Parts: sequence; structure tokens; C-alpha cells
Amino acid sequence: MTLETVSTARCHGGMQGVYRHQSSATGTPMTFAVYVPEHAPGARLPVLWWLSGLTCTHENAMVKCEYKAACNEHGVIFVCPDTSPRGEGVPNDEAYDFGQGAGFYVNATQPPWSEHFQMRRYIEEELPALVAENFPVDMDRQGISGHSMGGHGALTVSLRNPGRFRSTSAFAPIVSPLNCPWGDKALTGYLGPDKAAWREYDACALIADGARLPDLLVDQGTGDEWLEGQLKTHLLEQALAQAGMTGTIRMQPGYDHSYFFVSTFIADHVAWHAERLKA
Amino acid sequence: MTLETVSTARCHGGMQGVYRHQSSATGTPMTFAVYVPEHAPGARLPVLWWLSGLTCTHENAMVKCEYKAACNEHGVIFVCPDTSPRGEGVPNDEAYDFGQGAGFYVNATQPPWSEHFQMRRYIEEELPALVAENFPVDMDRQGISGHSMGGHGALTVSLRNPGRFRSTSAFAPIVSPLNCPWGDKALTGYLGPDKAAWREYDACALIADGARLPDLLVDQGTGDEWLEGQLKTHLLEQALAQAGMTGTIRMQPGYDHSYFFVSTFIADHVAWHAERLKA
Repeated sequence: MTLETVSTARCHGGMQGVYRHQSSATGTPMTFAVYVPEHAPGARLPVLWWLSGLTCTHENAMVKCEYKAACNEHGVIFVCPDTSPRGEGVPNDEAYDFGQGAGFYVNATQPPWSEHFQMRRYIEEELPALVAENFPVDMDRQGISGHSMGGHGALTVSLRNPGRFRSTSAFAPIVSPLNCPWGDKALTGYLGPDKAAWREYDACALIADGARLPDLLVDQGTGDEWLEGQLKTHLLEQALAQAGMTGTIRMQPGYDHSYFFVSTFIADHVAWHAERLKA
Repeated sequence: MTLETVSTARCHGGMQGVYRHQSSATGTPMTFAVYVPEHAPGARLPVLWWLSGLTCTHENAMVKCEYKAACNEHGVIFVCPDTSPRGEGVPNDEAYDFGQGAGFYVNATQPPWSEHFQMRRYIEEELPALVAENFPVDMDRQGISGHSMGGHGALTVSLRNPGRFRSTSAFAPIVSPLNCPWGDKALTGYLGPDKAAWREYDACALIADGARLPDLLVDQGTGDEWLEGQLKTHLLEQALAQAGMTGTIRMQPGYDHSYFFVSTFIADHVAWHAERLKA
């Protein structure tokens, strides 16, 4: 696979790069960002995957998330993929919460989405192979995190791939697409009306169906405008309790849904992941 | 003066706000951002002014500059004004380096710019009065910094107002508009061809003409694409040496002109200012 370097810039000691490639999963060019900390020649570093939320490209977290100082301190590579295929030949929807910028990390089965919206395959298979081939990563030490729709992505990708990630965290995740309007709209569109097919894309359903993680860290702002109607953090608390699964859910007083919230706690998360990735 | 609150969000313990008001200096609505750290009721905090570079609004530094954690740690208020008047009735130029987004912190004397482009008056008089009236600032403890065109702004505003700022720093500043294409174009347009009128808007000329600062901190990336042709840091070094003025100019290896560079060293600058503002 050929990787085009779009840009690189020194930042907090390491290098922030942006890369583009032709994706076989989505059938489109895809762009992603990778931060590589300072490291000894030949060293292989742990990698933290970051899945972004609705409307985001690779760029939002790259400029707003404030992960770089912590990643350089802890020696962790940070990867920010895009949230969907994009471009003129790719179907879209005028709404912000469906279509381009809103891939929900699923493999779509419904036309016209199924041709390009194969984000699960892209995130679980194609991009890891590409990153392993082109960056100094140690694929035995992977962590995953994300924000909002990307928190949903991080939780579900990790729950479906036991043992792949040593650490999983999320910021303000959509914990149950089966139980919120964003999920209802997107999964109906991408997967069709049979809700049995949705369960592998629902963190709470995956846990109820037996999937487990060794540990989990979730931050959620109490001032988040989407908390009641879409995110429903309490459903994850219930799922953890019913499964007897360990996890820390921190309700952060007064914080909203934005990167002002994420940037406040990302250094905590990077340190939490690093502890597990470097153990 | 009436201040409209556009938005507020909790971030790194404090509050990041965006505000709008009708400016008498520019004759337009102006938007600016203020970060207020956590503080005891009734406390008055030192304030650090941040002047942004070409093309920027109040928003670029607010989302990219990574000042908030350091400001909350040190208890410093951080203010990000816009870089020019804007709007349909305001003259503009198609280029990125003149007109809207490129006010160069001058009081324009040439038509059609002179009606609205009164950014010196806005930054030196109107906005400080507005901030003093509406935020818990201690106006006896002010510092100033900025990036590129805003570094030029920080240096010249401080040099022209001896004693107002306890601390002055800059990132990749335009040190001498008299001696670079950006300055030549902008100051010809705003001030006319008589270069005697430019000297109060040129840090090196101000120093040569007798202005002094007690101390100065400048960071400049060696990989900055504008270093040779526009920024010319060595002219500031020469001016400091000739004046016998104290200042630290740090050449940062491999860093470019972007906020990836600024965000790397802003915490250093905030700490440096805080040391002087809280002495």
C-alpha cells in the first residue's frame, strides 16, 4: 500500500504527520494523522488509536485534543483516522449525523451506503496493517480511545476484538446506539431495520451478550447537552454492573461535549493507557 | 459598553469564553476570547494579552495554542482579540496578508483603510478598558505576547507603552516591518509611503529610537519557512545588542511557523510571564 505524506511538523518534541492513501475498504482516498514522539533509533512504541466524533475529520483531534505533550512524555504514538469515506462519488446526507463525517465505525450493508461505508473493516483491518508497516509501532501494545461517536467506536471495536487492546477508554461515548436517536437513524440507514444486526455495534449489547474488557476508563461531562438524550452514560454503568465488569466512569462537573472537555482530560487518559501499555 | 457573551465552556478547570461588542475604535462588532482560571471569589488575576498572526481570528489561539492548562496552573487570565475589523462594510483585499485578518495592529491613516482599521487604538485603549470592566483582572499586572504579525504587535505595543506590561514575549515575530515584504505591503497600504510614519510600528526601529523593555523572551523555529524572507530574527538580535537591552532569543531546532510550534512552548511562556506578573 502506498502512503502519501501530506505534511509533517515538529510538535512537543515529536513529529505530527498527516498521511493519505487509497483505501481498499472504503474504495476512496483516506486521510489520517499520526503523532510519533521522540524515540531511540529502532525503538518500537506503543500505539493509541483515537476515533473521532460526528462531523470530524482526522484534523479536529490533531489540532484541538492536546495529546501531544503527554504522548511525547510517555512515548506513545497517537493515530487519528477520519470518521467516514468522503468525496464526490460517495453518498452523503445533508444532516451532520449521517453520511460523510458520520460513519459510526460500521460495515454498512444497505445501499447506497454499503459500497463505501466500510469503516469497521477500515479501522479494524486495513489501517492497522498500514500503520504497522509504515510507523515504529509495537502492535502488541495497542490502546484505543475516542470521543462521542468515536467513543462508541473505541468501545465496540475493543469489545469485538478481545485481547487486541491492552487499554480502552472513551470521552462522552454514545454507549448504546440501540437506545438513542443518533444510533437509531444511523444504524437503520447503514444496517437496515433488523436490530439484531445492530448488537455488534452497541457497547451495552456487546457486554450483555458476553463481551468483556479487563478495564475501562470513561470521562463524561455533566454539562454535556447530549448526555440525557443521546449518550445515556447510565446504560453503560448498568451494563458494567450486570456483567460484573470493572470500569471507571467519571462524571466531570460542568464540562460540555466539546474538545474543551476532551483536551482537559486527555493527558490523564494518555497516562492511564501508558501505564497499561508499558506494563 | 455592552458585552455580549457568545459562548462559555469549562476547560482545564477554568472557563473559556467568547464575547462580542460594538467597537468605537473600529466602528464594527469585534469578537474576542477570554480564559479565566479557577480563582477565589473577589480575586483579581494577572492578565496576559495574546495577539494573533495573519489570517487569524480570536479562535485560532483559543483552540490550538494549549495555553489553558498553564494559565489555570499559574492563575493567569488569557485574552485573544481578533486581528482586524471584519464584515461586509469593511474594506478588504484578496490577499491573506493585507486587509481583513491582517490589521498589523496599526492605526491606518490611508483611505479606504483609515475608517475601520484602528487596531492600535482598539488593542491599546478600548479593549483593555472593556476587559478591566468585565473580568476579574488586575490591570497592574499585565503581560503581552503574540505570534508572527501578533509577535510584532506584542513587541511594538509594549515598546510604545513603557511600564504598562511587566512582561513581553513573542513567537516567531515580524521584528521589522520596515525590512520585509509583509511589512512593506501592509504599512504602505495602511500608513502611506512615508517610512518615518512606520517607525512606531517597527520593534527594531522603536528600540533604535530609544524605547526599552526590562526583559524579553522570543522563541523562533529554525524550520520556519518565513524566517529568512520575512521574520529576520537577527535584526532584533542586532537591535538588542546595539541598545544594550536584555532579551532571550531561543532558536528552536526544526520547528516551523505553525501553532504546532507555538503550542509546544506556550506553557514555558505562561510560566515566564507568571513569574514576572506575580513577583
